[in-house]
Amino acid sequence: MSVVVVGSVAFDDITSPSGRVKRILGGAATYFALAASYFTKVRVVAVVGDDFGAEQEDVLKKRSIDTRGIERAPGKTFAWGGAYSENLSEARTTFTDLNVFEKFQPRIPKEYEDTEYLFLANIQPTLQTDVRRKMNGVRLTGCDTMNYWIKGDREELAKTLKLVDVLLINDTETKMLAHEPNLPRAAQRVLAMGPKALVIKHGEYGATIFFREGAFGIGRHPFRAPTLPLDEVKDPTGAGDSFAGGFMGYVAAQPELNREVLKRALFYGGVMGSFAVESFGTERLQSLTREEIDERFQIFRELTHLQ
Amino acid sequence: MSVVVVGSVAFDDITSPSGRVKRILGGAATYFALAASYFTKVRVVAVVGDDFGAEQEDVLKKRSIDTRGIERAPGKTFAWGGAYSENLSEARTTFTDLNVFEKFQPRIPKEYEDTEYLFLANIQPTLQTDVRRKMNGVRLTGCDTMNYWIKGDREELAKTLKLVDVLLINDTETKMLAHEPNLPRAAQRVLAMGPKALVIKHGEYGATIFFREGAFGIGRHPFRAPTLPLDEVKDPTGAGDSFAGGFMGYVAAQPELNREVLKRALFYGGVMGSFAVESFGTERLQSLTREEIDERFQIFRELTHLQ
Repeated sequence: MSVVVVGSVAFDDITSPSGRVKRILGGAATYFALAASYFTKVRVVAVVGDDFGAEQEDVLKKRSIDTRGIERAPGKTFAWGGAYSENLSEARTTFTDLNVFEKFQPRIPKEYEDTEYLFLANIQPTLQTDVRRKMNGVRLTGCDTMNYWIKGDREELAKTLKLVDVLLINDTETKMLAHEPNLPRAAQRVLAMGPKALVIKHGEYGATIFFREGAFGIGRHPFRAPTLPLDEVKDPTGAGDSFAGGFMGYVAAQPELNREVLKRALFYGGVMGSFAVESFGTERLQSLTREEIDERFQIFRELTHLQ
Repeated sequence: MSVVVVGSVAFDDITSPSGRVKRILGGAATYFALAASYFTKVRVVAVVGDDFGAEQEDVLKKRSIDTRGIERAPGKTFAWGGAYSENLSEARTTFTDLNVFEKFQPRIPKEYEDTEYLFLANIQPTLQTDVRRKMNGVRLTGCDTMNYWIKGDREELAKTLKLVDVLLINDTETKMLAHEPNLPRAAQRVLAMGPKALVIKHGEYGATIFFREGAFGIGRHPFRAPTLPLDEVKDPTGAGDSFAGGFMGYVAAQPELNREVLKRALFYGGVMGSFAVESFGTERLQSLTREEIDERFQIFRELTHLQ
């Protein structure tokens, strides 16, 4: 089966303790699409400017990603600059040039309409709702958001959340969205807003999935997957989007959709996130093999499973 | 087999979002001993004052904990006050009255000398070294420390670390001890200082054990255990000591000593820590059953293990 991702494609300038790069291919949709492409067919909906050339598009095409939904608008592609300090926990944004992304109105190509899985990357909630309504036949919708929308566009976001199946956000975003400092209680409040499952990403500590009562099967317990303790994180940019790509890509490739599938997807999300941060930008995600991915999955398993 | 714990016994005043208590039984050795008592025979070495009565001692005796090593000194028992804010991550110390603990000189009763396992709770490193030397026949020594000694008594601590097998500290302490912000690299540096294994406690995210090359078996990967996502943490005091008690207690009760035992011990550490925070002070740790403990162990397993 296939997955459509709607989100940003960008040029990134990144500085981290491991070095500095300029105008490399980035954006949530790019990271997501590359990560998911190792599991299933991926289709992208995004907007780019005149400066987005064949070289950039080829990065996606080489992974057999469908780029027919990437609109070319007059002007420049979204550009972002970020700098990470030594602890790598958060990027300081050095600049944000929205450019053509400012007026992004996602258009779903006719050829995409039969897609079974949808991922709404971090864009304005009204646009997310709009896309979700257009893709009404999907089997499962995943969704990301951020503090900016939680604080500034809560009402619109609440409407979006009623239409999504799995929300993937981090600890801070969960607590902010729920107005609740205790994470499990915050998770329950977020689930009451609409999603059937909530994936909370804990950065270097992995991720936890909470299920709404009765959704995707029975049971009352959440599930936790690790990340790999890495000796060197070169560039954390895109880790969350790569996580989402691994998660959604794995789910979309399974015939069944149940808790066990979502638990394994949580592991694959962590696996793809761990590859993403090993190099600047999408470099590592461009040249993986399924064998490398399954080998790392096995390491994740050994890291957490008793004999 | 049995375990000796050397550390503090105290009276605690605690304020948290869940309430406030005064002069309840606390101290690292108390939490450790109660948690470990569900797995193995526990012996305590500590000092208390005139205000420590039969009521307090009975808490330990009811769990068949050997209190012959608790010295009664003229003066008052160590007293500590702490207040937790809403996020519960760290206590603000409201007062510290060391009292008789200030001159604590651990004395190991003759009857304790055949003990196979030793835990050095967070006390001055010179005292830890001294105790460890006196107990030279032990099979395994566990050790805790804190920022105060890492910053202020590094040389003495370095000597202690050469004599311990498993060091149990948190993320911040690991990075500070190693002068290294990357956790896996910091772990390797700490292992190079002496311990064969390092348990890093991540608070609500669980714990990771790193092994020195070749220690306790083969393999190059660390192992991670979770904590339970709890709807209400009433009082985080003693969580780390209860973790250590569950960890060491489980290890001491096993005939074998290998990586698989230490991995399971990491789970039991998390289990005992999760019980400790459910009530103020040691209340929950006083009245558990082994069935409740194994039930929670099973929940921890379901929380992390794929089918």
